Amino acid sequence: MSGDRYAPTREDRFTFGLWTVGNVGRDPFGEPTRPTLDPVDTVHALSDLGAWGVNFHDDDLVPRGAPAAERDRIVRRFREALDATGMVVPMATTNLFADPAFKDGAFTSADARVRAYALQKTMRAMDLGVELGARTYVFWGGREGSEVDGAGKLLDGLGWYRDALNYLADYAEAQGYDLRFALEPKPNEPRGDLFLPTVGSLLGFIATLDRPERFGVNPEFAHEAMAGLSFPHALAQAIDAGKLFHVDLNDQKMARFDQDLRFGAENAKTALFTVALLEKRYDGPKHFDAHALRTEDARGVWAFAAGCMRTYKILAEKARRLEEDDELRQAIAAYRMPDAELEGLMRFSPENASALKDRSLPLDELRTRGPGLERIDQMVTEVLLGVR
Amino acid sequence: MSGDRYAPTREDRFTFGLWTVGNVGRDPFGEPTRPTLDPVDTVHALSDLGAWGVNFHDDDLVPRGAPAAERDRIVRRFREALDATGMVVPMATTNLFADPAFKDGAFTSADARVRAYALQKTMRAMDLGVELGARTYVFWGGREGSEVDGAGKLLDGLGWYRDALNYLADYAEAQGYDLRFALEPKPNEPRGDLFLPTVGSLLGFIATLDRPERFGVNPEFAHEAMAGLSFPHALAQAIDAGKLFHVDLNDQKMARFDQDLRFGAENAKTALFTVALLEKRYDGPKHFDAHALRTEDARGVWAFAAGCMRTYKILAEKARRLEEDDELRQAIAAYRMPDAELEGLMRFSPENASALKDRSLPLDELRTRGPGLERIDQMVTEVLLGVR
Amino acid sequence: MSGDRYAPTREDRFTFGLWTVGNVGRDPFGEPTRPTLDPVDTVHALSDLGAWGVNFHDDDLVPRGAPAAERDRIVRRFREALDATGMVVPMATTNLFADPAFKDGAFTSADARVRAYALQKTMRAMDLGVELGARTYVFWGGREGSEVDGAGKLLDGLGWYRDALNYLADYAEAQGYDLRFALEPKPNEPRGDLFLPTVGSLLGFIATLDRPERFGVNPEFAHEAMAGLSFPHALAQAIDAGKLFHVDLNDQKMARFDQDLRFGAENAKTALFTVALLEKRYDGPKHFDAHALRTEDARGVWAFAAGCMRTYKILAEKARRLEEDDELRQAIAAYRMPDAELEGLMRFSPENASALKDRSLPLDELRTRGPGLERIDQMVTEVLLGVR
Amino acid sequence: MSGDRYAPTREDRFTFGLWTVGNVGRDPFGEPTRPTLDPVDTVHALSDLGAWGVNFHDDDLVPRGAPAAERDRIVRRFREALDATGMVVPMATTNLFADPAFKDGAFTSADARVRAYALQKTMRAMDLGVELGARTYVFWGGREGSEVDGAGKLLDGLGWYRDALNYLADYAEAQGYDLRFALEPKPNEPRGDLFLPTVGSLLGFIATLDRPERFGVNPEFAHEAMAGLSFPHALAQAIDAGKLFHVDLNDQKMARFDQDLRFGAENAKTALFTVALLEKRYDGPKHFDAHALRTEDARGVWAFAAGCMRTYKILAEKARRLEEDDELRQAIAAYRMPDAELEGLMRFSPENASALKDRSLPLDELRTRGPGLERIDQMVTEVLLGVR
Repeated sequence: MSGDRYAPTREDRFTFGLWTVGNVGRDPFGEPTRPTLDPVDTVHALSDLGAWGVNFHDDDLVPRGAPAAERDRIVRRFREALDATGMVVPMATTNLFADPAFKDGAFTSADARVRAYALQKTMRAMDLGVELGARTYVFWGGREGSEVDGAGKLLDGLGWYRDALNYLADYAEAQGYDLRFALEPKPNEPRGDLFLPTVGSLLGFIATLDRPERFGVNPEFAHEAMAGLSFPHALAQAIDAGKLFHVDLNDQKMARFDQDLRFGAENAKTALFTVALLEKRYDGPKHFDAHALRTEDARGVWAFAAGCMRTYKILAEKARRLEEDDELRQAIAAYRMPDAELEGLMRFSPENASALKDRSLPLDELRTRGPGLERIDQMVTEVLLGVR
Repeated sequence: MSGDRYAPTREDRFTFGLWTVGNVGRDPFGEPTRPTLDPVDTVHALSDLGAWGVNFHDDDLVPRGAPAAERDRIVRRFREALDATGMVVPMATTNLFADPAFKDGAFTSADARVRAYALQKTMRAMDLGVELGARTYVFWGGREGSEVDGAGKLLDGLGWYRDALNYLADYAEAQGYDLRFALEPKPNEPRGDLFLPTVGSLLGFIATLDRPERFGVNPEFAHEAMAGLSFPHALAQAIDAGKLFHVDLNDQKMARFDQDLRFGAENAKTALFTVALLEKRYDGPKHFDAHALRTEDARGVWAFAAGCMRTYKILAEKARRLEEDDELRQAIAAYRMPDAELEGLMRFSPENASALKDRSLPLDELRTRGPGLERIDQMVTEVLLGVR
Repeated sequence: MSGDRYAPTREDRFTFGLWTVGNVGRDPFGEPTRPTLDPVDTVHALSDLGAWGVNFHDDDLVPRGAPAAERDRIVRRFREALDATGMVVPMATTNLFADPAFKDGAFTSADARVRAYALQKTMRAMDLGVELGARTYVFWGGREGSEVDGAGKLLDGLGWYRDALNYLADYAEAQGYDLRFALEPKPNEPRGDLFLPTVGSLLGFIATLDRPERFGVNPEFAHEAMAGLSFPHALAQAIDAGKLFHVDLNDQKMARFDQDLRFGAENAKTALFTVALLEKRYDGPKHFDAHALRTEDARGVWAFAAGCMRTYKILAEKARRLEEDDELRQAIAAYRMPDAELEGLMRFSPENASALKDRSLPLDELRTRGPGLERIDQMVTEVLLGVR
Repeated sequence: MSGDRYAPTREDRFTFGLWTVGNVGRDPFGEPTRPTLDPVDTVHALSDLGAWGVNFHDDDLVPRGAPAAERDRIVRRFREALDATGMVVPMATTNLFADPAFKDGAFTSADARVRAYALQKTMRAMDLGVELGARTYVFWGGREGSEVDGAGKLLDGLGWYRDALNYLADYAEAQGYDLRFALEPKPNEPRGDLFLPTVGSLLGFIATLDRPERFGVNPEFAHEAMAGLSFPHALAQAIDAGKLFHVDLNDQKMARFDQDLRFGAENAKTALFTVALLEKRYDGPKHFDAHALRTEDARGVWAFAAGCMRTYKILAEKARRLEEDDELRQAIAAYRMPDAELEGLMRFSPENASALKDRSLPLDELRTRGPGLERIDQMVTEVLLGVR
């Protein structure tokens, strides 16, 4: 009965990173379980599954230190795969975490030479991303953090971070790059505590930059969950601030290591609210920043990728159903209680304030009125479970 | 050997809330274990212990619904206690969480009448705070949040929140109040998820307000810890943004219910870094937003209050010692590696960027150099433990 | 379309505690939002909704300190309600947490008089429970724990705990009570750390008791989730040990304060695995130890109770569907790889061990074979979401 | 000023694993930052630092698949290093997690061939451990767990686990090995949920084994902290059950990825209570199962190892000081309230129970008496901080 209506199409704008389906299954306790994928094969496989685009870190595509000729050959081959399939590269980013040079931070290293290296590597990666068509550039500061706060760089670290972002915004401006920067937060792992750990932290930091208009956020489902925070709430703040530039979808149990599970695999209800917000208020790429379980072989990898997209579409259908359910709509309407006169007094003027301050209010009613939230939630749950 | 050098003085600017030492020991599973305190007695007791000031929610001082004459009598008696002791009221705030009317939010209620009541109550409480000398006004949105996101107010909730803060800033302006607003975040409890859950979230939200200059944050140690976040990192971001308007000190095990433990009782090392930052970069009141364990009687309450202040001073002494330890200073100096030429190139110009992009860097050295962080951390640990 | 097949019947053996639907909505930050319910009304209301039984703490039914005549009157009235409705009391328990006397522990208090009071109160409550038909007696040690481990009672606390449980088992034996004891763990809240915090801890503790056969566990969904643990895993261990004597169903976000949400409200997939295990391996009462959101009025309370039962039945249907789905069955069958010869060698004898130690195994195949878990999980997800 | 009294000696019985100081600094996001160490060099370096012993997984010493001659050469060289230094091997264990063959479990794999391989590998590793003198054999089931519970092996998994442990106990018996088995729990990582996640879970599981007397636990500080549980509480339960066979010391922030920090680096106070318990109730090896931060070079690694031992000794001194502090002793004595008569009634007999049930108790006093816990905790804190 579930039919083809959940099959992804280009219009869905689903994207994956080379590093996601290409994850080889290494973890802190075990060796790789899967071979490395050729990026060209990945483009074809994702295209066959119905994805719209593919994203990469510089090193995912061009091995670190490759000579120029090798780089050019790789880029040409990759572009041919894009052309052959119609796949796009909407986003690119820099790997500022794998190289041991970045072990104590990239933009926030206490070593000026490392900071210089991070800028250099990022400018080159921006060039590569733009060359392949990227319009969004993501910054995830995977090593920007600390375990030893006694070394005293908390404040300087933020200053160096800002300097780097300002520099790179100037660089994009000078190069005439049509790029938006999307900053991605994470609370911890691999560092003990990462700087600017949540979506909110980055929204606050953007306000201190020289070119705030160029910067937005790239919230990741799993990263907010690691801090025990609500992803829909974080998305809502980003949307409210006009700063939702990109989004990373996956899943995760709360308050533990970074799991990067298949979208919808764990918190189906939170995923539903996520999809509902995105469908209404976001039209950028839906990027799945996840990977197949380490147990899986290649078949499992593609089942994983297909599952991310399919679950998204199932939930999008449910999001529409939530809006069309009459009983639910009425319950939500009844939940809201407007009051034109009071709303008038809540537009500030000294007179309104004075009137409001003395206004008598029906406190007993406000204290006893039930908003009907258990009933609303049960209806939503039944839509989620497909029995309504 | 520990002597009187840890005895608090007015210069330390330690403050407590009436609700902190006045906590009666009720929790979700048990009845009060202590009687209610008279605010006047509290002022005297705190003064005797060496505190500088006392803060309150409107309802802590004047019971909700008290007639005007009763309010005036209470305020007069309270002011006399302040005058008699020399204690001050540096901060005041509104209780927008205890009244059942606020059960589904105050500024963010879906019921316009509740939003009106929250504004009314806050204006009156601001008047009371200013009357008693407060210069900082704290907002903690204890009911601004949700459990049922299917009711669909995530975005409107943020809009109503902003409207309320803008209104109250206009009110303060119109009244000529010399008040700064300090917003206090908390990730959850009593609501399933509270809006604007972290220090960073509020810094981001402030950037969307009409009068951002009037708003800063009031970070609380325990609230960041509940989200598994580093309090010193949050403080550093607030300081970096020029927004550390107030601070709430206490303690807490990570990722669990709100414990409000005595300052320094759990995470001594994090408390040390907290004190080190405050001593260098903050000169406002140090407010202890904690309470004695529910097991305790009145003697335990005052032991708790004295302990908060004493531990702060012990840690402040250690913070100074960290700066004076030659071996540690050298290790920290060696940790930083400046490079004047590269730092020059890291000031943006198209030419500098171009030069930096092509610059050869000593990558092997950057990859193998050890920053000495284990050694630094061990020295700090030994200062903390008093054996260095 | 979902029809009446989700309407609860007596055969479902759903139970609620008087304290669950009777929760008045007080929390650490706010006053009650709902009036107290009369237990007799609760019995009728639950019966009307289709519940099978009702459980209580001694104090839920008979106010602490009520004179004997008052106690008897209350019990008689309550029994009449049971008789009138056909509702049963399968489980009873003692409130050892609300009275300030228990603020630092009941069975584990450092004060021998408190320990005596706890025993006394429990014997009386056991008498009451048995009088009303209870066959299972639950122990939840809500105050058995500590915040101040420096007071040095960690080991003695466990000893006192054991003494109390042994004493009460002897009492039940001597009274000829046909009662099984179900111990209920919780990691923290209201104490900083509760003793014996997880299902496993209690299974370990039972092995040290004098009459282990009388003791089993009462796992609670939310309590394992508070420790970030898997509830189905905990259930499986209890079933494996033959110790699943009772179960408490509700819901909760991980690693935060005790939420006691409506069953299935948060972690739908984990709830599905929970129901699947219970339907196959448990035939006791399904007890909902949860309460309506504090926002709700009486209508919300009964919507909450109905929702718990309805969601259980929806999930039970899905659990059956999981077993009947051919493609899923085949995938699960393929996931398992038996090997008769090796399984023979895995029955211990010195000869088998010697043979196994030298046996050549197809390691390359074991390393590369994919178990198909992403595909299985996607099928389960689609059954959960009702599209398969 | 702290002098040599914190220098470790053999009598302290400190041990490290080859894998701890040998950790090369790889993590899920980054490449190794340090070269591999030669086990022989490690033995000498640890000996020079004052350690007593060294432990290993089979693969740490002898690479997987090494031919017999190579194995013998390696073992001979290693034994020579032990002889030359006087270092011992008190504990050994099996690596059942790195080989991709174990990706979905070792003893609990759904593939019988993998289970056979795990038994085979463990028997060989037990032989190796015994050959080098180990008396304790640790089991850490790093891959025994699941992400996809829909595959349906929760109960069979526990059965297979038990079969394997019974088999290996039989093997040890048949071989005449003087070995105790210490089971080590962990809540999650690298698997989504690990089976038998806490110290308590294992104590419960041991009660179901054929030879429970041979089995105890190996609690790890960081692993309990990952579940937000108290390590001293877990230690106390293991001691109470007579099952503390080994201990793994390190540190960790709660409710996040496995950090394996230097002992005492994060939770100094919890570390103090840990040491206090071990010094009184445990005389086995104190094993540091931690590693240097990934930022560090070889100097940092040895600073890390020295720091673990040094901090332990500093805390052991403080543990003694806690016992010798008169004021603290008096406060702890006053905290306890014996009552000979009531304690008599708390020894069960039907008469005592009857007398206790009717006994009048001073409830008002029990409700209002303050136990002095804030004061005790402040004294302990000041001992910890070295100012008392």
